[in-house]
Amino acid sequence: MTDSNTTSRRGFLTGAAGLLAATGVAQATPAEAKSKTGAPPAPPASAAKGTAEPFWGPHQSGILTPAQTHTYFAAFDITAERREDVIAMLTRWTEATARMTAGRTARDLPADLADTTADSADVLELPPSRLTLTFGFGATLFVKDGKDRFGLAAHRPEALVDMPVFPGDQLVEAMTGGDISVQACADDPQVAFHAVRQLARIAYDTAAIRWVQSGFLGGFDAKETPRNLMGFKDGTGNPPVNDPEEMRKFVWVGTEGPDWMRGGSYLVVRRSRMALEHWDRMKVSFQEQTFGRRKYSGAPLTGHKETDALDLDATDGDGNPVLPENSHVRLATAASNDGAKILRRSYSYNDGANVVAERWPPWRQGLEYDAGLIFVCYQKDPRTGFIPMFEKLSRFDMMNQFVTNVGSGLFACPEGVTKGGFIGQRLFEKA
Amino acid sequence: MTDSNTTSRRGFLTGAAGLLAATGVAQATPAEAKSKTGAPPAPPASAAKGTAEPFWGPHQSGILTPAQTHTYFAAFDITAERREDVIAMLTRWTEATARMTAGRTARDLPADLADTTADSADVLELPPSRLTLTFGFGATLFVKDGKDRFGLAAHRPEALVDMPVFPGDQLVEAMTGGDISVQACADDPQVAFHAVRQLARIAYDTAAIRWVQSGFLGGFDAKETPRNLMGFKDGTGNPPVNDPEEMRKFVWVGTEGPDWMRGGSYLVVRRSRMALEHWDRMKVSFQEQTFGRRKYSGAPLTGHKETDALDLDATDGDGNPVLPENSHVRLATAASNDGAKILRRSYSYNDGANVVAERWPPWRQGLEYDAGLIFVCYQKDPRTGFIPMFEKLSRFDMMNQFVTNVGSGLFACPEGVTKGGFIGQRLFEKA
Repeated sequence: MTDSNTTSRRGFLTGAAGLLAATGVAQATPAEAKSKTGAPPAPPASAAKGTAEPFWGPHQSGILTPAQTHTYFAAFDITAERREDVIAMLTRWTEATARMTAGRTARDLPADLADTTADSADVLELPPSRLTLTFGFGATLFVKDGKDRFGLAAHRPEALVDMPVFPGDQLVEAMTGGDISVQACADDPQVAFHAVRQLARIAYDTAAIRWVQSGFLGGFDAKETPRNLMGFKDGTGNPPVNDPEEMRKFVWVGTEGPDWMRGGSYLVVRRSRMALEHWDRMKVSFQEQTFGRRKYSGAPLTGHKETDALDLDATDGDGNPVLPENSHVRLATAASNDGAKILRRSYSYNDGANVVAERWPPWRQGLEYDAGLIFVCYQKDPRTGFIPMFEKLSRFDMMNQFVTNVGSGLFACPEGVTKGGFIGQRLFEKA
Repeated sequence: MTDSNTTSRRGFLTGAAGLLAATGVAQATPAEAKSKTGAPPAPPASAAKGTAEPFWGPHQSGILTPAQTHTYFAAFDITAERREDVIAMLTRWTEATARMTAGRTARDLPADLADTTADSADVLELPPSRLTLTFGFGATLFVKDGKDRFGLAAHRPEALVDMPVFPGDQLVEAMTGGDISVQACADDPQVAFHAVRQLARIAYDTAAIRWVQSGFLGGFDAKETPRNLMGFKDGTGNPPVNDPEEMRKFVWVGTEGPDWMRGGSYLVVRRSRMALEHWDRMKVSFQEQTFGRRKYSGAPLTGHKETDALDLDATDGDGNPVLPENSHVRLATAASNDGAKILRRSYSYNDGANVVAERWPPWRQGLEYDAGLIFVCYQKDPRTGFIPMFEKLSRFDMMNQFVTNVGSGLFACPEGVTKGGFIGQRLFEKA
């Protein structure tokens, strides 16, 4: 297994070989490579976009990592039948992930152009772009159709429940579930897609893609809360990622979980299509009542600035709550959920437009944007996090009339990886 | 009509009103806005992402403009029956486009929150992000089902032919044609989508979206030719946009066209789905034979660096051409097309994955990426540009076995807009 933060795809022809040689990796020399490809010298990496996020460590990256501008989410189903094959794939995935997050190709580019397997090479000159890859295990990896497929059933965490189907869910099988989740996030859409595509190639004969989804955040100053496509700031109520105590309390699995999950977290993903045409016809004041926040400033209806706490007790002159009983933020806030918090890390998605003919009020039909939110959240335990929270939201949230959940998933993201190990190693060693 | 390069969405609450007042635009004062929204002061615009592309001028922007990182392409069908309604819509579109390309909301944000129409507000703090909006007219705007809908039939340019269906085309009606095209390009996906979404709202009761498509370029140094998802540099053979003579010769319509098209150009768009899984299994050497260029350097097979000219006469030791007869670049280059050149301005697209069951060799089926190229090119006349070029490519290009064209369009993009005018004004004044 190799790792180098000092080599990059940008220097792959002219600068990398020497450094790679120093770390003992076989690769064509610059002269060899040049004679085959006639490449011009690569320019130096851009400092602004050139940074790499760490891969090795006690926690997986991509959870507390400040949100990148793009994501590509993939759910895989295992097609192999032997546990060794899954372990071999996870080992190769770990190696490729360590390389790609450091800004390298998934595998060494071949000196022999008759090779097919190295890398699709569509991000050759591109910097690491803060790529992170975050892996999770679905319930079906442990037991599927009643079968203990890989001898893992005894190690399925209690918290990895079967994801409920909530009231109003219109789930599409082709956007739901999966044995393994891989979320790529990067400041470049091609870097994110490239990473998953290489993992899919490496998985050939062991796992196949079940569903994928790309997403983005509007252009982007990490100091500001991004706006979703409804025009509202999204993520204001998150627990602070720089507070280790809050993260221990709400995000990371502790001693209550199986040891392979300690330092891990549970990922919920939902593909939430927004009825943007419908939403855009609503009064701004109605949108604010729905959300519970001011549209332009992000302030709660009971406050003046975005960071003001919600005042659930505030009433207007008639004695009615200023934050409506069925407003989104009121229903979702910790004080309405026995103190529970989830760490949201959602992206917008935009898959064009297609014909919709809904069978429920207001019976919208015609061509509509297939756009909305890839809702993603992390939590210590979905049974106290997203699930009870959304049981309530799915029944009462005013926003439901503008959102249709068409995809859903719950995945157990194990602890981080130590150099020399592989993703989920402690689970597979147990089994 | 308003225009200001000095105001932006970033200062919309605290700084813009004074500047807007100076240009005579009614808007809530900062104090009014603040009392309604409780907004914190907006941070200063980021210099790096804060630039605006010009909108007014003899040519439309978005043609020679250095490619932005994201696009959102939309084809609209006119649903109104009166020419005045189309003119009114184009006038409102022009006004909104001038505002949005300068980094402002499509319309002033309402002081009255009971208003619904102003702007979806999802890009409020975002800079102009080099947004361009480029408009084109399809053949069906002039004549549809044999009917001269808006009294424009006599002014349909000869060059605006009915787009042929080429050998191998698998066109989907829902991704083909349209009365009016709008291509938004920006360095931010949300800014591009936002712009089209506001135009669609403004068009309500006059035009409706027929199809849309988002796209992106891999992360991005404008000095480098971007790679497409096949891993090859795409656009190397373009005529240089900084050579006015080449642009006059190949891109801009001159006195041979109707006067409303002088300074305009013809846009061809194709949604070209790539069989990436299939492509990724090919040897690099075979991919290079297919493309006619080296994968890593972009150099032609007959050269050493990307910018080297193709040598169509070069032969190997056996007397065979070094650039195969059916390689992509050989078939597409000017020397193989009576000197014709087109200005390519394509984007990659990535709409997830879905089930494919092809009815032609190699009969691929199963889940595949719905990803590929939004091929976009501009030219003086499609009858000497894309159409004859692709007649040949569609029959002989080795790359066809990896690409399925599922969408297609041809649009006449008129001259640019002068302040006080509207898009296509000279066409509608004639009629």
